[in-house]
Amino acid sequence: MKPLLLLSTTLILATLTASAQNPNESKFDALLSAQNIGATIKELSAKPHYVSSVGSKEVAESILKKFKSYGWDAQLETYTVLFPYPKTRLLEMTSPEKYTALLKEPGLKEDGTSSQPDQLPSYNAWSADGDVSGELVFVNFGLPEDYEMLESLGIEVKGKIVIARYGRSWRGVKPKIAQEHGAIGCIIYSDPKEDGFYQGDVYPKGAFKNEYGVQRGSVMDMVIYPGDPLTPGIGAIGNAKRLDRKDATNLLKIPVLPISYHDAQPLLAKLGGPVAPEGWRGALPITYHIGPGAAKVRLKMESDWRMVPAYNVIAKIKGSQYPDQWIIRGNHHDAWVNGANDPISGIASMMEEAKAIGEMVKNGYQPKRTLVFAAWDGEEPSLMGSTEWVEDHKEELKQKAVVYINTDGSGRGFLGAGGSHGLESFMDAIAKDVKDPQTNVSVYERLKARQVATAGSDKAKKDNMARKNMTIGALGSGSDYSAFLQHAGIPSLNIGFGGEDEGGSYHSIYDSYDHYSRFGDPGFKYGVALAQTIGRTVLRMADADVLPFEFKNLHKTVSNYVTELQTLTDQMRESTTIQNEAIKGNNFKLAADPSEYFKEPVAKEEVPFINFSPLQNALRSLELSTARLSEKVAKIPAGSDQSALNKKLFQAEQTLLTTTGLPRRGWYKHTLYAPGFYTGYGVKTIPGVREAIEQRNWNEAQEQIEIVAGALTKLSAYLDGMVAGGR
Amino acid sequence: MKPLLLLSTTLILATLTASAQNPNESKFDALLSAQNIGATIKELSAKPHYVSSVGSKEVAESILKKFKSYGWDAQLETYTVLFPYPKTRLLEMTSPEKYTALLKEPGLKEDGTSSQPDQLPSYNAWSADGDVSGELVFVNFGLPEDYEMLESLGIEVKGKIVIARYGRSWRGVKPKIAQEHGAIGCIIYSDPKEDGFYQGDVYPKGAFKNEYGVQRGSVMDMVIYPGDPLTPGIGAIGNAKRLDRKDATNLLKIPVLPISYHDAQPLLAKLGGPVAPEGWRGALPITYHIGPGAAKVRLKMESDWRMVPAYNVIAKIKGSQYPDQWIIRGNHHDAWVNGANDPISGIASMMEEAKAIGEMVKNGYQPKRTLVFAAWDGEEPSLMGSTEWVEDHKEELKQKAVVYINTDGSGRGFLGAGGSHGLESFMDAIAKDVKDPQTNVSVYERLKARQVATAGSDKAKKDNMARKNMTIGALGSGSDYSAFLQHAGIPSLNIGFGGEDEGGSYHSIYDSYDHYSRFGDPGFKYGVALAQTIGRTVLRMADADVLPFEFKNLHKTVSNYVTELQTLTDQMRESTTIQNEAIKGNNFKLAADPSEYFKEPVAKEEVPFINFSPLQNALRSLELSTARLSEKVAKIPAGSDQSALNKKLFQAEQTLLTTTGLPRRGWYKHTLYAPGFYTGYGVKTIPGVREAIEQRNWNEAQEQIEIVAGALTKLSAYLDGMVAGGR
Repeated sequence: MKPLLLLSTTLILATLTASAQNPNESKFDALLSAQNIGATIKELSAKPHYVSSVGSKEVAESILKKFKSYGWDAQLETYTVLFPYPKTRLLEMTSPEKYTALLKEPGLKEDGTSSQPDQLPSYNAWSADGDVSGELVFVNFGLPEDYEMLESLGIEVKGKIVIARYGRSWRGVKPKIAQEHGAIGCIIYSDPKEDGFYQGDVYPKGAFKNEYGVQRGSVMDMVIYPGDPLTPGIGAIGNAKRLDRKDATNLLKIPVLPISYHDAQPLLAKLGGPVAPEGWRGALPITYHIGPGAAKVRLKMESDWRMVPAYNVIAKIKGSQYPDQWIIRGNHHDAWVNGANDPISGIASMMEEAKAIGEMVKNGYQPKRTLVFAAWDGEEPSLMGSTEWVEDHKEELKQKAVVYINTDGSGRGFLGAGGSHGLESFMDAIAKDVKDPQTNVSVYERLKARQVATAGSDKAKKDNMARKNMTIGALGSGSDYSAFLQHAGIPSLNIGFGGEDEGGSYHSIYDSYDHYSRFGDPGFKYGVALAQTIGRTVLRMADADVLPFEFKNLHKTVSNYVTELQTLTDQMRESTTIQNEAIKGNNFKLAADPSEYFKEPVAKEEVPFINFSPLQNALRSLELSTARLSEKVAKIPAGSDQSALNKKLFQAEQTLLTTTGLPRRGWYKHTLYAPGFYTGYGVKTIPGVREAIEQRNWNEAQEQIEIVAGALTKLSAYLDGMVAGGR
Repeated sequence: MKPLLLLSTTLILATLTASAQNPNESKFDALLSAQNIGATIKELSAKPHYVSSVGSKEVAESILKKFKSYGWDAQLETYTVLFPYPKTRLLEMTSPEKYTALLKEPGLKEDGTSSQPDQLPSYNAWSADGDVSGELVFVNFGLPEDYEMLESLGIEVKGKIVIARYGRSWRGVKPKIAQEHGAIGCIIYSDPKEDGFYQGDVYPKGAFKNEYGVQRGSVMDMVIYPGDPLTPGIGAIGNAKRLDRKDATNLLKIPVLPISYHDAQPLLAKLGGPVAPEGWRGALPITYHIGPGAAKVRLKMESDWRMVPAYNVIAKIKGSQYPDQWIIRGNHHDAWVNGANDPISGIASMMEEAKAIGEMVKNGYQPKRTLVFAAWDGEEPSLMGSTEWVEDHKEELKQKAVVYINTDGSGRGFLGAGGSHGLESFMDAIAKDVKDPQTNVSVYERLKARQVATAGSDKAKKDNMARKNMTIGALGSGSDYSAFLQHAGIPSLNIGFGGEDEGGSYHSIYDSYDHYSRFGDPGFKYGVALAQTIGRTVLRMADADVLPFEFKNLHKTVSNYVTELQTLTDQMRESTTIQNEAIKGNNFKLAADPSEYFKEPVAKEEVPFINFSPLQNALRSLELSTARLSEKVAKIPAGSDQSALNKKLFQAEQTLLTTTGLPRRGWYKHTLYAPGFYTGYGVKTIPGVREAIEQRNWNEAQEQIEIVAGALTKLSAYLDGMVAGGR
């Protein structure tokens, strides 16, 4: 998976005080080669290499060999995981006329790898096996609000097969919500509005998805838990205790299949029922209707549920001073097909970093802390390689892991960075020290310029100009940081470039070297910029006297979240009251067109006032504690051994975990960050409270406020302990 | 033309105190027949009947005969006007491949009149004659901001032929702006996004525009002056002094042609250059590019510039008590083709009203004031019939015209009412007295329910629920009220129903009885509702002891406009400062993708502070004057002869005219209402000031503030004169 780039990250204007160039970093930069990055991308994307494929093993071994040749201590760490290989895929419209979906992306002469054998057929991994027939209903993006719209039109999907378009939510959420509403099958298609000719010229003329392109991808319910579905919470080693597949709570019960817009159009064109509301209409040259009727379809899916090896490549350089403090940096290596962008563009930068550091070590450089570089397998189906590794080494990681720095597919454009907010000011400084290859200003400055130029209002433009520092986004899911951050409480960062790389190849056979070198990052200059960014992150973390955590930023960010939650509750209260009054006044009934589909909305329970004071009090304590700690850290003499303090610093994030985890998904233990239960990759901050409010579960919201306030108070006390505890 | 229905009209909740049913109105209602309205629509739309056609003369004569048969004193009033009949229409793409546009709407077996001979070919009346060839450039809707976007991309249209899509502005504004930017020709097409399959099923399956449908229409620059272009300001009677055609300042210099989306797609598909920005993309299954290149086209247009008769039908019933106080009610009768909706649906209600009133008169009813019912010719090309009639009778009308009540095409749905704000409370009372045929609540209540149900925010929903009275919109242009209101200062109203009638037939051969009876107003119940609404308007005006003007509403409305103007200026000032700062900070340059089209924006002159106090002072005086007048009127004993006061009341609006008119378009004399110079039909309120601000002409804005303040002060003094002047 490629993480959504965090381009909404807000920014802050600085008189750019680039720190005096660090000599190590200058050496590091000089060792990076765009040409080499391009060659690595070409090599590692030369064949299809999904987990368990021959190509995947070759890629893992090639990476292993490279690490070793760069002087790293590298090895494969293998887990045994469940992986469904698609055996049967059938979609046909049975009435009012017959149409059998092609389910096939054609090879193109302009794309050298697109006609290879051994491609993984287009499918959604973790679809249930099944053979279902029924009327088709178009559900737009398949979001909760889309089902509310259907409800307002009096349309049910129970016993029907739904067709949803890709976009707006993580794909796995679409069949999950469909299943909750009683659908018996789910088709997901790429509408040209979001992903095709509407966006730009299609491949191979342009970068965008042609009519046959299909987005593969996982539909495991990863917001329950990711990784191998049979071993939640523990490493999937050979003799691990495994669940029965039917007991895995993150697997769907209905069949799902992704299709191209070529295959979707004949089905959608035959739908009757109401014309889809404006926000539901895509770019196909048809009148979008919702159905049900006249289209009936049959969907048959069967997978070969194999137990397969997942090969993680783990490479280390032992720290000279603090060998038990690990700087971990990772990127997955498995792809749905060739994956030149996703994940190889990220891997290529990582290998370039590894080569440069290896070279520096040969020339006498000794990182103070241990470097751990990881190439994960099985990320695409469900973050398997990274999750199993974290679960397997959890206790050791909790003691040793200073930070986890993740990348994934990356391209031309603007810096996107998200992660633990204790590392926000650290990232800010790095963003100001890396040059944008196209404009020669810092990547911070360029990102800020974009935020100013594209601001949606005068106020936003003004605020963006006035900011002096970069802010980083919170992390949801969709790449390998999840287990580190959200399960184990390891401070994490996820970094990439993008926004000027043109899309359409994502998870298709066209995610190739030919596509990436034309549209992703021509000349591979952003591959270098990414290596420079991550290199600084790794080297500064490795060699810092005092680890660069600054919890004032965490406090400020969480304060903003709490304000958001209060505003959200107030708005819901106001909105509910007004809506109920409007319903009572018969307004919806009178306004409705009597000749159209309509069901009167139902009044909702009024929103009570919630007690936010536990959070507010905890935040005030945290504010004082973070200020005291910063004051203490500022006074530490340079070069002194701060081993104990540093361990306290990087373990601080763990105080934000709860033992029980989030309601109904205990694997997620972080009180501040989680993927959204109904959004998937999209983050929910303070998820326990926020989702309870969104779901109108007021008792749970109050309970979760106490829990989160407890975690913040624990962090506060922990920081106070550091201030009290000696030098 | 069909006026845009004023559905954004805001509303006000009332404890519905329907006035005790007026016995005349009960009689009137009982005489209305939906079946009869349907029959009239069928009869009068049976043949094509554009101005000067055989069909048009027959329609005029048929209307004349009906009036006479209903007992009205009716006659034809004929003007001699210029009318361009399309002689040559040619559009072809000459490279990169040849395509010759069809320019032809096919007849359909499902539409009984669609295959008739004598249809007016699809064209834009008042296109210049010309034969031009050049590169094509797509200009989106052809609005001023679209040209700003082109500028930001570094694309010029000078020497090019532009293609714009219908929508967002009045069509005539599109070639005008293109011409201002140096384009040599203009094509206007119906994109399926606004007007075709994107909106709903296409004709004949559904109501919406099929791929061959073309919207005819005028492209005269009517915001300079409407009517016969050779006789601005005077009636186009036989021996009137006429301009040379080349001296008519409201005629274009470049050829223009409207086309279907079938004809547009091959051209648009061949455009290169940048991909059109998101807001520019329509619903055709292509990647929208802007050009120029590769498409080159040839556009040839030639009209036969004929002098033709325009037949107005004028019917009167003399007032028993105040024969020199005229209640005028009109609707045009000419159509682009068959025009079942536009204009015949409005004419059919008008004839039903005339029949009912005629019947009442036969049974002894005597209106106190004179009723003048008018069926106008030549509205479609340029409001010719009404404009020439007003110009011809201007002095008499200024003495006698109490009100002009207009309708045009109308359909199923919600009341839309706009006009002089001195008549707002009058319309409010009527809207509360007419029943909606589908829900049986008043048309006011249903409109209010819709405004609540579709409100864009909680605040708007709440405000809409809290309102107790209907507000009416301001009038721009697009139907026959323009000369009355904006040239002669006659208080005017424009009324219709719509919002549930489905579109796509507008100005095409498919605006037929078959289309209208299926999609416009099945059962013709809203034809009856329209007649009931207008009937009440006419009868109450005709028989009122004191004419129902209430200038407190005018004061309140104008106060809101002035607040808007101040906010607009403040926002522009803030926005300019911030934008200039963003430019100075290099943000746009740094944010731009170096591989894409881009031209750095240029800083604009800062917005000065403007002196709004003349308007504020004038408004305060007006507030006091209107209160005093209302107080006086409230004390008038019922049944007393208020002939002099009434004349003062209906002439009050004339104090809001200026003798010089608006800058650069002196025909428009009203200081409060005008069609927008760059929007066309769309109204600009306080146009002199508002457009000067929008065009950043600060000196003119200040001058116009003085002028408008002067007019308001004159009205204030005039009202004070009425208060002082006797009983």
